[in-house]
Amino acid sequence: MPNLRIFCNAEFNDSVLKILRDGIAPHELVFPQRSGESILKVAPADPAIFQADIAFGQPDIESVLKAERLRWLQLTSAGFTRYDTPEFRAAVTARGLVVTNSSSVFAEACAEHVFSFMLAQARQLPMALSSRWVGGWDRTSQMRRASTCLEGRRVVILGFGSIGTRLVELLAPLRMQIIAMRRRPRGDEGVPTVTPEALARALAEADHVINILPDNAASTRFISKERLGQIKRGAVFYNIGRGTTVDQDALVASLHGGHLAAAWLDVTDPEPLPEDHPLWTAPHCFITPHTAGGHRNESETLVRRFLENFQRFVSGSPLRDRIM
Amino acid sequence: MPNLRIFCNAEFNDSVLKILRDGIAPHELVFPQRSGESILKVAPADPAIFQADIAFGQPDIESVLKAERLRWLQLTSAGFTRYDTPEFRAAVTARGLVVTNSSSVFAEACAEHVFSFMLAQARQLPMALSSRWVGGWDRTSQMRRASTCLEGRRVVILGFGSIGTRLVELLAPLRMQIIAMRRRPRGDEGVPTVTPEALARALAEADHVINILPDNAASTRFISKERLGQIKRGAVFYNIGRGTTVDQDALVASLHGGHLAAAWLDVTDPEPLPEDHPLWTAPHCFITPHTAGGHRNESETLVRRFLENFQRFVSGSPLRDRIM
Repeated sequence: MPNLRIFCNAEFNDSVLKILRDGIAPHELVFPQRSGESILKVAPADPAIFQADIAFGQPDIESVLKAERLRWLQLTSAGFTRYDTPEFRAAVTARGLVVTNSSSVFAEACAEHVFSFMLAQARQLPMALSSRWVGGWDRTSQMRRASTCLEGRRVVILGFGSIGTRLVELLAPLRMQIIAMRRRPRGDEGVPTVTPEALARALAEADHVINILPDNAASTRFISKERLGQIKRGAVFYNIGRGTTVDQDALVASLHGGHLAAAWLDVTDPEPLPEDHPLWTAPHCFITPHTAGGHRNESETLVRRFLENFQRFVSGSPLRDRIM
Repeated sequence: MPNLRIFCNAEFNDSVLKILRDGIAPHELVFPQRSGESILKVAPADPAIFQADIAFGQPDIESVLKAERLRWLQLTSAGFTRYDTPEFRAAVTARGLVVTNSSSVFAEACAEHVFSFMLAQARQLPMALSSRWVGGWDRTSQMRRASTCLEGRRVVILGFGSIGTRLVELLAPLRMQIIAMRRRPRGDEGVPTVTPEALARALAEADHVINILPDNAASTRFISKERLGQIKRGAVFYNIGRGTTVDQDALVASLHGGHLAAAWLDVTDPEPLPEDHPLWTAPHCFITPHTAGGHRNESETLVRRFLENFQRFVSGSPLRDRIM
């Protein structure tokens, strides 16, 4: 195989860049004049991509479509909403361009993040950690009674990809009763899996409803006022998918009305959430600023997962995390 | 077997009391004139215990020693410090009195509680949940880099009873490298187990040090200034055992000096912790007010576990959670 050119518009520090350079040698890296600000945001267009066989980062769609040499694109994100159009999919298929994402990079951190939400809720950490201010030690008996165990409770997971798969593994020792929902159950989920049509019954019995839906045309406001109403009174709602999948006005109303016991959100619509947004002041609404996928060695993991796929590409094996 | 009399000085509500009464029938419950305020505190002495074959609750030691009919005492707590004296042990052995505790009632909640601490620390929840106030959404990248995964990290568990056993089960999917410490390793711990003499080396490599030591003569200030210094710089310390096992002045100093990255404490010495105690203001020190063992159906679980042991007692089988 002649030397390949890999266009990279993600910004990495020197030590991570060295791992990438060493890992692809003797093949060649090409860079844009200005790299992206973030692994999650689209970078400015740059003609360097036109010389490349492979792209790694967040290139703009127009450049990808014009880059005739390009045979494989690996995104540095798990989400790929802006690439998920009929036009882009058609062009990609026609050209035989393979598109992969980095979902496996973020799956562990996302699964641990939502698990941290579930345990923090069960053990009443937001209240209990405020003991000094709320006189908690005088109310220990009350706080102990408000605390619960996750063991044996019922969970519904909405959207079931690499994060859902890992979450089910993490929850296994808790012997929870887990039901997954995905549009097209494959039978390999390892837990009972229903379609959206059969969701209402599962929601009516769930103690914990975990939303991991990606952002696309079918998922917009999927968690509607109606579906929120179908969830068992006193249940807890979690969102680490995308903010656009939730009717946030209905969520705020549900929290004020006491139907949901709490909501834990890592994603909102829009982001950042404006300072005066009613979600900030809704009762028992806990928000982290889209940090679920983050972890200390994120860049290095991104590069290592890319290199694993690069070896597969070079040897002609199927790529992992393929989305198109 | 003639009818047994069970003295109960724990205060339960009517529905839980009915479970207890139904469960022991046709045997008989006897009550003190005044029951205990808490399942964790000693109740006032009462002569009703002198008619009893079995006691369930927190009777005072003097009454237990004088209650000649008594053959079995089940404590409603996991801790049993005040009963753990050479004199009491000698008297109990001489009389053939069996003493059990309720550690299995609290093991699940305690294990989930410390796990909630570990995940909250890894996912930086105290900072991330404060986003609205600290401008978190402008600092998402920084917060993502500060976040970590538990997967693959090193853990040392100090004291290894029912809580430690359950914690190891819960952590299994995270593939952590776990070392337990107990005075007399039995070989059935399921993880490598060292004695206190061999602890320093394990502490030097640990990312998470979890203290579940009970309160007794050998454990007082076990986590000394010296041992805190042996822990790897940047590690996190957790305590859900007893506050007396830690040199709290040394812990405060370690946090101020930045040697430990954080401390998560459910127990302190004394409790309640005075409002002006330096632990409240030590950096990255997170405190819950002894809520680790609590859970919504605590009283019912206490009674059900007692009834399981009661059936064993009646049928002559060995009792669970035996401590003497």
